Amino acid sequence: MDGFPDLPEFPPGEVWLAGAGPGDPRLLTVLALHAVTVADDIVHDALVDPRVLRLARKDAVLLPAGKRGGKPSPKQDEINALLIDRARAGRRVLRLKGGDPFVFGRGWDEVTALSEAQLRFRIIPGLTAGLAGAALAGIPATSRDTNHAVVLAAGHRAEGQSTADWEALGRLGQPLILYMPMTQLEEIVAALQRGGLAAETPATLIQSATVDGERIVESRLDALAADAQHHRLGSPCIAVIGEIAALRKEVFASMVGWS
Amino acid sequence: MDGFPDLPEFPPGEVWLAGAGPGDPRLLTVLALHAVTVADDIVHDALVDPRVLRLARKDAVLLPAGKRGGKPSPKQDEINALLIDRARAGRRVLRLKGGDPFVFGRGWDEVTALSEAQLRFRIIPGLTAGLAGAALAGIPATSRDTNHAVVLAAGHRAEGQSTADWEALGRLGQPLILYMPMTQLEEIVAALQRGGLAAETPATLIQSATVDGERIVESRLDALAADAQHHRLGSPCIAVIGEIAALRKEVFASMVGWS
Ligand SMILES: C[S@@+](CC[C@H](N)C(=O)[O-])C[C@H]1O[C@@H](n2cnc3c(N)ncnc32)[C@H](O)[C@@H]1O
Ligand SMILES: C[S@@+](CC[C@H](N)C(=O)[O-])C[C@H]1O[C@@H](n2cnc3c(N)ncnc32)[C@H](O)[C@@H]1O
Repeated sequence: MDGFPDLPEFPPGEVWLAGAGPGDPRLLTVLALHAVTVADDIVHDALVDPRVLRLARKDAVLLPAGKRGGKPSPKQDEINALLIDRARAGRRVLRLKGGDPFVFGRGWDEVTALSEAQLRFRIIPGLTAGLAGAALAGIPATSRDTNHAVVLAAGHRAEGQSTADWEALGRLGQPLILYMPMTQLEEIVAALQRGGLAAETPATLIQSATVDGERIVESRLDALAADAQHHRLGSPCIAVIGEIAALRKEVFASMVGWS
Repeated sequence: MDGFPDLPEFPPGEVWLAGAGPGDPRLLTVLALHAVTVADDIVHDALVDPRVLRLARKDAVLLPAGKRGGKPSPKQDEINALLIDRARAGRRVLRLKGGDPFVFGRGWDEVTALSEAQLRFRIIPGLTAGLAGAALAGIPATSRDTNHAVVLAAGHRAEGQSTADWEALGRLGQPLILYMPMTQLEEIVAALQRGGLAAETPATLIQSATVDGERIVESRLDALAADAQHHRLGSPCIAVIGEIAALRKEVFASMVGWS
């Protein structure tokens, strides 16, 4: 590369909380790539792509802290404690999360824990999977003719928690980008329809954007759950619901992918 | 840097539509930085930071196509025509926009024009200013205790266009991140309150995130317009409205900035 921005020092004892984007290492920010290549310890989610982790120093310590897969995953308290211990030991700790750390990513729990422990941290925003995954599928989050707002919402209900008011979101009539849509998809679709969203509203599922197993399934609101099942879509997946979801067919023939 | 991802060829005659993020060149994605350093022609918005443009090849042609500033700015049709002409001439054309090209950025108008002209294009998503600006100010778009959804909305009404239904968004009670909030701020605030959003709802204005003139003003819903005026905030600015806006004070003492 020709020009290259100056890069900051990573002081020992700091925690950098970075988003890794949807997966493709070329979608890391320059700061996140820098952090990956200089960190002593990388505490990473299961969603962080192996190609990203392979960019780390050979002697970096990789500490998986994922919430997925068959194995029991560490609890949030344990992850917080790990970050704190490593930072106190004077390590340069990179906490690396899929997408953006502050979009349905529990990043907030971690920075409050660091703050309570009086440790210094920095934030590196990342491309959130909902927006980047849609864009790379040829779906704009907004277009002049379709919407003035876009809603990012979490479809999955954590223990003891409510979810968004899907009926109200159905009434709103602005496009939705759903994260973790699968576990409650039928209920969500039903509530959106009760709220007034038309059965034939375009809806597209994007599984594993930019990573192994990428798949795009175009559907409509009332067929979404059945199509997800029929095509055996699984996590990670986003659902785009609204007129924007149908736009990709207008440009798809001219669009070149990155693979 | 140690590891570095492999980078794609930029074929002559293609248009790459890339987001430059909020401004700091270190928040470019690796793909966007690559594109900036190899493009023949860079058609850029006024929002793209000069530090980003300085990374271009010495012999690259920089073509401003901004919509801001005192000078008359080219119309969308003219920008489309410019992209098409340059690509047809066999140039490697980078269309570079602030933030993400598909978030309130008119990127869609451009790719449909390219597609109609049967030209090949690619998308490079960028960090959208609303999410990245908030995160870098210490405001998470989501936190487990406050919200399951976040709304990105455009506050500015283009000629002949309606805006979002602010009353309905007030009723929804999920946090809002407003782009271009200034021209209609009073009307928006009034409608959000009519919808039921409490007068004391935390609200924060972030001007010029990561660029020259960066300023953060903490306020509350009913004081937002007056505070914007009092502090003489101007474009570019985002407004974060909702409980998330108040969270930054919990961690701010421990957070280290990038400057
Ligand atoms: C716990 S959330 C974390 C979101 C992440 N912080 C972000 O900003 O993208 C996990 C969800 O993100 C979405 N996701 C993350 N990476 C994805 C990818 N590569 N393709 C599709 N969806 C993805 C899926 O909805 C997944 O269930
Ligand atoms: C035409 S919109 C383009 C948005 C852009 N595509 C994005 O994704 O961020 C312009 C608006 O973006 C927001 N914006 C862009 N860059 C910004 C920055 N560095 N700081 C604050 N707001 C910014 C402001 O609301 C500005 O009025």
